[in-house]
Amino acid sequence: MKAKVYVMLKEGVLDPQGAAVQHALGALGFDGVEGVRQGKVIELDLATGTTEATVREMCEKLLANTVIESYRIEM
Amino acid sequence: MKAKVYVMLKEGVLDPQGAAVQHALGALGFDGVEGVRQGKVIELDLATGTTEATVREMCEKLLANTVIESYRIEM
Repeated sequence: MKAKVYVMLKEGVLDPQGAAVQHALGALGFDGVEGVRQGKVIELDLATGTTEATVREMCEKLLANTVIESYRIEM
Repeated sequence: MKAKVYVMLKEGVLDPQGAAVQHALGALGFDGVEGVRQGKVIELDLATGTTEATVREMCEKLLANTVIESYRIEM
């Protein structure tokens, strides 16, 4: 079975990578880019029967730094 | 207006980051993790009226390395 975890920086946390991408897009001539935020998408191939609670535990322990990141699980 | 770009490594391309996450999950006691692939999600804040074609051009020029990565756009 598959699960997807989306990890993004929390609102208000500085996103240097997003800022770098925004700057680069501007330098390439793409105007009208008002903001860029970059996060992770993690695709998990799990044994059948793995529960969302287990995936949540994976996020809390490893996949997301919950101090500055929020995560969303898609089972 | 917002657009989201999902960038993943193409099938068959080695994903060392995914392998590292899989190994770490195993070390934390999460058995039943058969595979992990990690990619990027990029949230773009764009001027109203920006077309999908423009976002596609951003992907082709900067956001994705189309030799080893594939991307999906959500407008």
